[in-house]
Amino acid sequence: MATLSASHVIVDWGTSSFRLWALDRDGLVLAERRSGDGLAASGTRGFEAVLESHLNALGVPDGVPVMMCGMVGSRAGWIEASYLDTPVRLDELAARSTIASARRRTVRILPGIAQRSAEHPDVIRGEETQLLGLSLGGHDGLACLPGTHSKWVRLRGGVIESFATFMTGELFQLLRTASVIKPAVEGVDAVDAGSAGFASGVADALAAPARATNLLFELRARWLLADNPAEETLARLSGLLIGVELAGAASRYGALDGAVLIAAGPAAALYARALEMAGAAGVTIQDAEASVRDGLHAAATAAFLTTEGALR
Amino acid sequence: MATLSASHVIVDWGTSSFRLWALDRDGLVLAERRSGDGLAASGTRGFEAVLESHLNALGVPDGVPVMMCGMVGSRAGWIEASYLDTPVRLDELAARSTIASARRRTVRILPGIAQRSAEHPDVIRGEETQLLGLSLGGHDGLACLPGTHSKWVRLRGGVIESFATFMTGELFQLLRTASVIKPAVEGVDAVDAGSAGFASGVADALAAPARATNLLFELRARWLLADNPAEETLARLSGLLIGVELAGAASRYGALDGAVLIAAGPAAALYARALEMAGAAGVTIQDAEASVRDGLHAAATAAFLTTEGALR
Repeated sequence: MATLSASHVIVDWGTSSFRLWALDRDGLVLAERRSGDGLAASGTRGFEAVLESHLNALGVPDGVPVMMCGMVGSRAGWIEASYLDTPVRLDELAARSTIASARRRTVRILPGIAQRSAEHPDVIRGEETQLLGLSLGGHDGLACLPGTHSKWVRLRGGVIESFATFMTGELFQLLRTASVIKPAVEGVDAVDAGSAGFASGVADALAAPARATNLLFELRARWLLADNPAEETLARLSGLLIGVELAGAASRYGALDGAVLIAAGPAAALYARALEMAGAAGVTIQDAEASVRDGLHAAATAAFLTTEGALR
Repeated sequence: MATLSASHVIVDWGTSSFRLWALDRDGLVLAERRSGDGLAASGTRGFEAVLESHLNALGVPDGVPVMMCGMVGSRAGWIEASYLDTPVRLDELAARSTIASARRRTVRILPGIAQRSAEHPDVIRGEETQLLGLSLGGHDGLACLPGTHSKWVRLRGGVIESFATFMTGELFQLLRTASVIKPAVEGVDAVDAGSAGFASGVADALAAPARATNLLFELRARWLLADNPAEETLARLSGLLIGVELAGAASRYGALDGAVLIAAGPAAALYARALEMAGAAGVTIQDAEASVRDGLHAAATAAFLTTEGALR
């Protein structure tokens, strides 16, 4: 196996996925690994063994440091990387990272962020790194990170001022797989952002978000009474939940104008369409994976490299 | 086995429960049976066999007619009792019932009700019988029937004008058993209507129902950050979902004043407290089981008895 002359390695390690990139000192990707080595399986095999097996497969020698983010830093992960409390300066994440190992190389995990507010208690773990990537470009204002637990974040001058998490993705999965809506959406996986079903869900949820749990039951009634196609029902379910999220974000943060959508693929298309329907002007899309890579590279540079680019 | 001299028998047969009462011609309960013979198990054994075994256990002779309501009349039940379309006169339910058997006795199942509206498609199956019971007392206005799928119904002059179903109970079960909220509420089953946790959930949901899916995630954050007790978190979850339901009912029907709550036990206490917090004046409680018995007895009388009280 040839040795890879990487400067440092970055890893986004979540509940159900593992993504690793070996970079040169300028952040250029030399090699990468992707797998389904999520937390549960990795905990059994040992986190360090899983990480080293991926590094070994790429020929990354001992001594090359690793910067990680994601649920690997949660209580159920490798080692708990404690939360920083809002307001948080994103350029301080690297200095507040936790050492997971110093045996064959330095392995660090970035902290999550806690909003210890009596009114709005909330937590972030993983998305802070995408926000660090975004902040390198100097964004002030709102950012939206769609997902199992979608985040809306207010940034100013490189500082996370506050954020709000919505259970959108998790509710979508629960409702389509384990509720009375299930028979009405079976056999369909994808939602088309351009479909009438999606648009009707967004519009109705934005018009009457208080009726959310009534609108959800109506999906079943539509199926029972009108035999609505599964594609349309699933698209409407997605639209209802995203519409309720946008109504909630607006109730918390006011107008959603100028928000940066940190997303990719179908989620980016769905949220862009929904934000347009909500009347949000000047929304831009930032690729989610590029953001997490940018953030991890910036944190690794700050933690591991001297200003001359040599390893500390 | 002694023979029971019942005039008729009434049955409320749901997805997971079976309740049967043998009545005299005036509706006095002579004997009753309760079991967990829900639809799935009964379908396998045969609905008629299950019913006859309960009748036999009470000594109800052949020929005594039976009036039933509930999911036994759904597509997954004994025989489908077709929906009547809104607006529906409640005193017509009996005449529109479906004959499930005429072998050993006449067995009839009351129809459900469909709201075939493009804007508010919805269905009722079972609750229409409680509403029939309520309407015998002449109630005009709103009725609320808490449950897995809570119903809000507008009645006028013995007619169901419209209704709205909320997934409150089903979401409560899904979220507490299968979501990220689960670890925060484990080991607790009961919610105290007088608790601060319940009241805070109702108040916050009424104040900002659009933030529903954000408020739900905050339950997990409170647990992670402040180690909130499971009792308080479960009570707050219940309060949030009931609060969102009341906000939705108000968005659909305006003020909730004068609503009749058809409920019993813990649900009656929780909804009464939540309605009080929502500022609803003149709310009264009608026992859910008495309502279904009253409705079934009225329907059986109309279907089976002559005006002199003899069997038709």
